[in-house]
Amino acid sequence: MKHYTSINDIDNINSWIEEAKEIKANPLTNIEIGKNKTLGLLFFNSSLRTRLSTQKAALNLGMNPIVMNVSGDAWGIEFGDGTVMNGNTAEHIKEAAAVVSQYCDVIAVRAFPTLTDKEKDNSEQVLNSFVQFASVPIVNMESATGHPLQGLTDAITIAENTNKKKPKVVLSWAPHIKALPHAVGNSFVQAMQKMDVEFVIANPEGYDLNPEITKDTPIYHNQAEAFKDADFVYTKNWSSYESYGQNLGGNEDWVITKDKIGDAKFMHCLPVRRNVVVEDAVLDSESSLVIEQANNRTYAAQLVLKKILEDL
Amino acid sequence: MKHYTSINDIDNINSWIEEAKEIKANPLTNIEIGKNKTLGLLFFNSSLRTRLSTQKAALNLGMNPIVMNVSGDAWGIEFGDGTVMNGNTAEHIKEAAAVVSQYCDVIAVRAFPTLTDKEKDNSEQVLNSFVQFASVPIVNMESATGHPLQGLTDAITIAENTNKKKPKVVLSWAPHIKALPHAVGNSFVQAMQKMDVEFVIANPEGYDLNPEITKDTPIYHNQAEAFKDADFVYTKNWSSYESYGQNLGGNEDWVITKDKIGDAKFMHCLPVRRNVVVEDAVLDSESSLVIEQANNRTYAAQLVLKKILEDL
Amino acid sequence: MKHYTSINDIDNINSWIEEAKEIKANPLTNIEIGKNKTLGLLFFNSSLRTRLSTQKAALNLGMNPIVMNVSGDAWGIEFGDGTVMNGNTAEHIKEAAAVVSQYCDVIAVRAFPTLTDKEKDNSEQVLNSFVQFASVPIVNMESATGHPLQGLTDAITIAENTNKKKPKVVLSWAPHIKALPHAVGNSFVQAMQKMDVEFVIANPEGYDLNPEITKDTPIYHNQAEAFKDADFVYTKNWSSYESYGQNLGGNEDWVITKDKIGDAKFMHCLPVRRNVVVEDAVLDSESSLVIEQANNRTYAAQLVLKKILEDL
Repeated sequence: MKHYTSINDIDNINSWIEEAKEIKANPLTNIEIGKNKTLGLLFFNSSLRTRLSTQKAALNLGMNPIVMNVSGDAWGIEFGDGTVMNGNTAEHIKEAAAVVSQYCDVIAVRAFPTLTDKEKDNSEQVLNSFVQFASVPIVNMESATGHPLQGLTDAITIAENTNKKKPKVVLSWAPHIKALPHAVGNSFVQAMQKMDVEFVIANPEGYDLNPEITKDTPIYHNQAEAFKDADFVYTKNWSSYESYGQNLGGNEDWVITKDKIGDAKFMHCLPVRRNVVVEDAVLDSESSLVIEQANNRTYAAQLVLKKILEDL
Repeated sequence: MKHYTSINDIDNINSWIEEAKEIKANPLTNIEIGKNKTLGLLFFNSSLRTRLSTQKAALNLGMNPIVMNVSGDAWGIEFGDGTVMNGNTAEHIKEAAAVVSQYCDVIAVRAFPTLTDKEKDNSEQVLNSFVQFASVPIVNMESATGHPLQGLTDAITIAENTNKKKPKVVLSWAPHIKALPHAVGNSFVQAMQKMDVEFVIANPEGYDLNPEITKDTPIYHNQAEAFKDADFVYTKNWSSYESYGQNLGGNEDWVITKDKIGDAKFMHCLPVRRNVVVEDAVLDSESSLVIEQANNRTYAAQLVLKKILEDL
Repeated sequence: MKHYTSINDIDNINSWIEEAKEIKANPLTNIEIGKNKTLGLLFFNSSLRTRLSTQKAALNLGMNPIVMNVSGDAWGIEFGDGTVMNGNTAEHIKEAAAVVSQYCDVIAVRAFPTLTDKEKDNSEQVLNSFVQFASVPIVNMESATGHPLQGLTDAITIAENTNKKKPKVVLSWAPHIKALPHAVGNSFVQAMQKMDVEFVIANPEGYDLNPEITKDTPIYHNQAEAFKDADFVYTKNWSSYESYGQNLGGNEDWVITKDKIGDAKFMHCLPVRRNVVVEDAVLDSESSLVIEQANNRTYAAQLVLKKILEDL
C-alpha cells in the first residue's frame, strides 16, 4: 500500500480486521519492521486519541515518531497554485511536503475542513496536496471529508463485539452545540458498506450526508424506527451537508438515551459531550464500547503503518 | 507502588534516598525495565524542569515518553459529574483518562490550582480524577496542593549535602510579585516531617500554610529567629492560604540575602525571580544548591517510575 | 569540537564536506555514538526544516531528541545581568541554561533577532548566554546573526552540484513583504569565503550586509551584472543592516526569474514566498536545488552532532 487516505484504500476489510486482531494480540511482533524509520505526525488541528494512538502504533513498530503542530510550530502554508505569496502564508505546500519527505519515511496529516467552502473541502485540498507533493506515503489522520483510521477502528470493534452473521448497525446523528465535520460519519458509512452488516443511517431532515458517500444505504429521518432491533448504535454529530457546514439547531430529542438503544452496543469516536450527545447512563453502562474503540485506534494505525512499511 | 501523587506515598524516605543515590551513580542500570513501555506526560500548565527531567528519567529506564500540552494540543476537559456539556469543555475526564490509559503504561499529570476556589483546589479535582478514571498508575508532576517529585528531590539533595545527624532545615517564605501555589511548600513540609532533621517554617503573618499539612512543625513569623543556626534555607514564595490565593503585598524585607543565611546552604525549586525572591549574591555563591536540586529531579522521577514499573 | 555557534567553528570546510557526504551515503553508520545521549532542542521561534532535520540527525546518531518550545511550554527567560526580576520574565538564563544542561548532553537553540536593537542582536545575547551558562555543548539552530547549520548545508550542496574547480556563486537579495533577519545571508557569506569559489553578493543600495562579515567580498548593486556567468544563484531576503531591521520597500524588480538566472542553479534556504521572492518557473524547474538543500540539512546537523559527541 502506498497511501492510506480513505476507507477505499482497504482492499479486503475482513482480512484487515483479522490482521488487526493478530496485531492486538501481539502488538510487538513487528517491532523490527520500522527500525530507524521516522513517522512525521503533522497536526493542523487538535487531537488526543489520534495523536497518542498513532504515536503508540509507530512505537510498537519500532518507528521514531516526530510530532509537529504545523500552525504553532512552523509557518503558514499556502495551497493555491500560482499564488503571489504576499499575504499570511510563508511557505508553499510544494516545498513543505517535499521537505518533510526528506526527514520522514511516512507522513501522517490531520487537517479539518473549513465547513464554509464545500467545494474546497470536497477537493481535500490539504490531504491531496500532501499526496501530490510529498515523495513518501501519506496517512490521513482525519481530513476534510474522512477519518479512515477511525472507520477502520470501528470496523474492528464491531467485528470483535458480535457473534451474529449479519448484525444490524445504525449510524445515528445526535445533537451538538457546534457545527462539526462530516469526516467520521463518512468513513463509518464507507466502512460499513464494505462489511457484512445490515447498515442504516438515522438523521434529522436537512442532515443527510453526501449522497455520493451514502449511496444506497437506507436513511431514516425517524430515529426510533431506525433503532429497531439494532445491535450497534454508532453516534456522531455532523453539521448539515446540504446547508453546508451549518448547525441548524433544534433536534435535541435526538440525544441518545438508554431507553432508546436498549441492549444495543453504543459506539462513538470521542470526544463526546456528555448529556448533549448522549446521556451519562449510556456512556457509563456496560453497553458502551467507546473506550475499546479508543484502544483499537492503536491497532488500526499499526496495521496501516505496517502495510505501508512493508511496501516501502 | 500504584500511584505517586503525594509525599505520603513514600513508605520509607531513608531507603528511597539511598536508592535514588544508587540510581544517580548508575543511571542506566535499569534501562531494560521500561522497554516498550510508554510514559504519557500531560501538561495543563507550563514546565521546564519537570518536563525535561521526567522525560530524561523515562529515557534512562528505557521508556518511550509521549508529551502532550493538554490545553493546546487536545480538547477542553470537563471534570464535573453529571454536567450537561454545552459549554467550553468538549471531553469528559472519564473518557480522557480512560482513553489515555489505552496508550500509556503510566500517566504523569501537571495541573496547577485555581488559587480562587480553595475547596476545589484542596479536593485535587484534576489529579484525583485521573487516579479515579485512569486504569494505569498516575504520577503527580505538580498538582493543586503538592509537588511530590520536587519534595523527594529536595530530601535527596539535603541528604547528599550534610554530614550532620540532625541538620537544621528552614523553609522560608520570600516575596514575589505574583500569587503563587502552595504545592512546593506543602510537599517540602511533608518531606521534612519524614526526615531526621530539625525543621521549622518561617513566613510573615497571614502566610501560614494549611495547618493540616504543617501540623506541629514550628512556624516563625520572625525570619531572623528561624534562620539561627540553620544548615539549609529552603526558599519559596506562596500566596496566602487563609486569604486564599492572595498576594497580600509588602514583606519585601523577607528577600533572602547572603547576610541573612550566612553559611547555610540555599535551596529553591526554580524558577526563581532574582533580586525579588533572593539576591544574586546567594544564587551565584557556592552555598546555592539550586542546580544540584534540578539535577536530582531526574533521579527522583526515575526512582518513582522504577517503583511503579516494578509493580506493573 | 565544543560548541557549534558559527561558520567560524568549521576548521576545514573541505574535509567537513567530505565527511558530510560519507554520512549522507551511510546515515546510520554512527548510530551507536549517541546512544543514551539526549539532545535538547529549544525553540524560541518557529521552525520546520531545522526542527525536523535536527531531530532526524539526532536519531541517525542514536540520540534521544527532546523538543521544547521555550516560549509556550516554559517560562519567560531573563537575560539581563543583575536585573530585579519583577516584570514578565520568571527565570534567569543563568538557571535555565544550567538546569537544561542537567538533562541534555547537547543543547540546540533557535532564537531570532529583535531587528530593532542592533547592538543587542550583534551581541548574540541569547546564544552566547547559553554558551556562557550551560555546562554542555551548544548548537546554533539560527541565532540573531547566524544560521551555521544552513551555511554548512549550502556548502555541501554546492560541492555536490558542481564539477568546476572554481564555480561562480552569487548571493542575491530578493524582495519580501516583511523585515527579515540577516542570519542566513551572513552564514552563507562566511561559508563561501571559506570555499574555493568565485563569490559575489548582489543587493540593492541600503541592503549591504554587515561589513565585518562581508569583508572584501565584492558587492554589486546591479543584479544583472552580478549574475553574469553565475553557476549558482543563492537567493535570500534580508532587512537593511544600515537602517537596522527595516524593510525599505520597493526593489520588486529584484525578484528572481528564469530569464535572469539562465542555466545557473537556484538555491534558497526556505521557506520561500513564491512569486514574491522567486517565480514559480524557477522553483519548479530542474535548476532548483531547494529540496536537496533541505535534505542536506540532516547531514549537516548530523556531522556537527557527531563531531560534538566525539569530543564529549
